[in-house]
Amino acid sequence: MKPPATMLVVGSVALDSVRTPYGAADEVLGGSASYFAHSAIHFGPVKIVAVVGEDFPAEHRARFEERGIDLSGLETAPGRTFRWRGEYTAELGHAHTLETQLNVFSSFHPRLGPQHRDCPCVFLANIDPDLQLEVLEQVRRPRLVLSDTMNYWIARKPDRVLEVLRRVDVALLNEEEARALAGETLLPRAADRLLDQGAKAVIIKQGEHGALYRDRESRYQTPAFPVEALRDPTGAGDSFAGGFLGWLARSGDSGGDGLCQALACGTTMASLAIEDFSPQRLVEVGRDEICERVRVLHHMVNFRLKPLF
Amino acid sequence: MKPPATMLVVGSVALDSVRTPYGAADEVLGGSASYFAHSAIHFGPVKIVAVVGEDFPAEHRARFEERGIDLSGLETAPGRTFRWRGEYTAELGHAHTLETQLNVFSSFHPRLGPQHRDCPCVFLANIDPDLQLEVLEQVRRPRLVLSDTMNYWIARKPDRVLEVLRRVDVALLNEEEARALAGETLLPRAADRLLDQGAKAVIIKQGEHGALYRDRESRYQTPAFPVEALRDPTGAGDSFAGGFLGWLARSGDSGGDGLCQALACGTTMASLAIEDFSPQRLVEVGRDEICERVRVLHHMVNFRLKPLF
Repeated sequence: MKPPATMLVVGSVALDSVRTPYGAADEVLGGSASYFAHSAIHFGPVKIVAVVGEDFPAEHRARFEERGIDLSGLETAPGRTFRWRGEYTAELGHAHTLETQLNVFSSFHPRLGPQHRDCPCVFLANIDPDLQLEVLEQVRRPRLVLSDTMNYWIARKPDRVLEVLRRVDVALLNEEEARALAGETLLPRAADRLLDQGAKAVIIKQGEHGALYRDRESRYQTPAFPVEALRDPTGAGDSFAGGFLGWLARSGDSGGDGLCQALACGTTMASLAIEDFSPQRLVEVGRDEICERVRVLHHMVNFRLKPLF
Repeated sequence: MKPPATMLVVGSVALDSVRTPYGAADEVLGGSASYFAHSAIHFGPVKIVAVVGEDFPAEHRARFEERGIDLSGLETAPGRTFRWRGEYTAELGHAHTLETQLNVFSSFHPRLGPQHRDCPCVFLANIDPDLQLEVLEQVRRPRLVLSDTMNYWIARKPDRVLEVLRRVDVALLNEEEARALAGETLLPRAADRLLDQGAKAVIIKQGEHGALYRDRESRYQTPAFPVEALRDPTGAGDSFAGGFLGWLARSGDSGGDGLCQALACGTTMASLAIEDFSPQRLVEVGRDEICERVRVLHHMVNFRLKPLF
């Protein structure tokens, strides 16, 4: 097997304060780039481009570095680190944002160094689509670009979100986002519509129901890994992205088998992320446990097809 | 291959009036036993035990008979046939019941003849759990019993619903019903709890997200077949039951491969049912189309698992 391709993530590194029915955490490590990186690093090299303030704790920086995550693109700007405060109710599907302090993030423009421009795999985490497009201007012929977004940008800059969708290889959305952007209630139709609008491939994240991949030729689906000890759903989507892109970077297989296994790796990493606050479980988990969850998912859906009639 | 085992369904035969965002139908054939039978008959012999009134249209009776469905257990009682009137809004997840006229159904007690008691496969469709238990008293050592229920009975007779769950081989519930009966929000925990309460196996129907099978040893999941032309979701669950039990009756394989393929057959038959009002599509569909949908589902989830690390 060839060595895994290097992954670049451009997104947020934040301090989160979160309350869920299962506990609370105060000013813990958060942000899309943090979850992605701690997930993807299990599969291959990861470089972060993001910004933090002068108050960003040295222990968080150390934790990235202990895991071998490249922080050469983590800018420190004058001011305070991006902060998010939210809570989840019993349904756990949706975060209720209590407070967002953009702080240093408000004037962030991603600056890629030469070590970033040639990364073959790129994750454009959920940031302003204009910033995502700035990143696309700076990278040089990446093999695979995955993007994420959120309702906030779909409501405010739908055209720019669609422009990103057209220019990446795979666009991640959750069900609500897919429906909103496509203007279709039925998911299969929403996926069709996004392809009609120029997306090459979409993944619709379905929370506890797994995730659906769709391109012009194929559809693939993974169930969610059955988590019994959910504590905090924050970061599930970015951890999914880390497992998905991670397996593609590691295996180099973007055929049907590769995409299916990438979906299973994605939902596995998401299942780990939500079992604790911050990316803690992603830091602690070992290869055996990741393998075991992917095996469970494979076993849940795979069968030998017999002729029906 | 051995001939398929005979299936018995005890449930309702009704006249439905339904309005959805995609159209409306007035006094069309409905009822759990009707959907189940028109679905299961593609896989093997089906006998119905149910009741209709003197006004039940001869054309509906003829349609069952043309498909080879055994109506020797379809009682005609003095009075009017059970009627249901409902509508679905844009979300299509949930029917809003406008009117239920039980009519002859209000005094129905299932009476099984000798030709019914020895059926190896039994579907206890959604009726009063006390009636479901009456059926279980009358059957002789069936090989496989599947049950369905609904929120109405879970709210009114939870103990009797649980008693049915304990006495059948597989209990069908939708997500809301599973959560309500188990008193757990998280689906994996709800399934655990139902097994703790004595169920041997449960299937949690998840609408457009497919269905989950769970017993003490195993979990299996099928995605939903991606329907683009939904017209009326009525009968999806009973059509699912017909495909699921149908494949088990036909293949005689209740191992992992058999259960997975049965889930795929279930969601395939459900996908057909919802493409038109009444069980019309189930009547018209041919074997090729059923096979093709099961193949699509198999292709969506099956992959060759590579070692991760």
